[in-house]
Amino acid sequence: MKRIITISRQFGSGGRSIAKEVAAALGYKYYDEELVRSVAEETGFAEKFVAEEGEYAPGKSGLSYAFSSPGIPGVMNGLSASDFLWNSQRDFILKVADESPCVIVGRCADAILSGRDDTLNVFIHADDEYRAQRIVRLYGESDKQPMKRLEEKDKKRKVNYNHFTGRKWGEARNYDIALNSAKLGEKNCAAIIVSLAKNL
Amino acid sequence: MKRIITISRQFGSGGRSIAKEVAAALGYKYYDEELVRSVAEETGFAEKFVAEEGEYAPGKSGLSYAFSSPGIPGVMNGLSASDFLWNSQRDFILKVADESPCVIVGRCADAILSGRDDTLNVFIHADDEYRAQRIVRLYGESDKQPMKRLEEKDKKRKVNYNHFTGRKWGEARNYDIALNSAKLGEKNCAAIIVSLAKNL
Repeated sequence: MKRIITISRQFGSGGRSIAKEVAAALGYKYYDEELVRSVAEETGFAEKFVAEEGEYAPGKSGLSYAFSSPGIPGVMNGLSASDFLWNSQRDFILKVADESPCVIVGRCADAILSGRDDTLNVFIHADDEYRAQRIVRLYGESDKQPMKRLEEKDKKRKVNYNHFTGRKWGEARNYDIALNSAKLGEKNCAAIIVSLAKNL
Repeated sequence: MKRIITISRQFGSGGRSIAKEVAAALGYKYYDEELVRSVAEETGFAEKFVAEEGEYAPGKSGLSYAFSSPGIPGVMNGLSASDFLWNSQRDFILKVADESPCVIVGRCADAILSGRDDTLNVFIHADDEYRAQRIVRLYGESDKQPMKRLEEKDKKRKVNYNHFTGRKWGEARNYDIALNSAKLGEKNCAAIIVSLAKNL
């Protein structure tokens, strides 16, 4: 039995849908938006800042939109907003992992929880064509071409992951299992993960 | 149903054992040593040369041990031994993939057969510690430390793969599924692959 499932994913691959399905099937807590809300509450960062800066390239944003209320908290101890957010997210992930069985989406949780033997680390990816169609269907059109949106989001996640973990994002060896959701189907991906979580 | 399973693997990860088990369970032909023998026969290269040069870094070896009998065949058309071997292996893989359902180990078969919809591309990897113990158990000690042996073999496979395919070896997105055999167990890996091959 694996108590903690971390799910990293390419943008548009359906990793989040799969994560929700896995959490529901196992009766595990699901951390994604909730993680953002909790970290925002604890740190005083705006939710938008946590959602975007917490997974994407570090250090690019000014502090102007970082805080939900004006003023820089004294607790940052000289850290940049990105580093302070990283520490807060890491502490949150370490805390919830000890509390109860859960599925955690993104946020380098695989690396943060490495060394534990009660985790199953998953990576979900898919062909660009599939992802491009999926993001337009789910999030609508934008002024940027879908392929450009994929490229930008992937790049930011990669930079964030590599910067904070010292690993290379998307390398198979970082994960216990990596799945192509376009080829295997989201239902099959969820079923494989649930089965492994129960039987390992 | 997927007719063709390609299995790429880190040295010492048990990818070959898993591939054999999958081929037996599905009743598919298994190409690894047989591929080496057939390519050696067709090209006139020595089996040792095909086995080593066909998967590892290109262009390092002289021609002195490349051929099973003396003399350079006229059929090489000005190609280096590595490139000629690559072409021969590629043609062999394309041919057997059309002939009958099969499991093919290594040799960039995932990239060579890309674009087909009857393939399942698998990558098997494992923690260094697990692989180090496994190669000493299976292949015995050598004058090199096990970790050094892993590093050298991995590096050569990587250089070979990257050179001939233009992809990056070990990236999750090259494969439909990537599995950590140390964490999941070889039996589980084989069962997942067999189930996907039957049901996709």
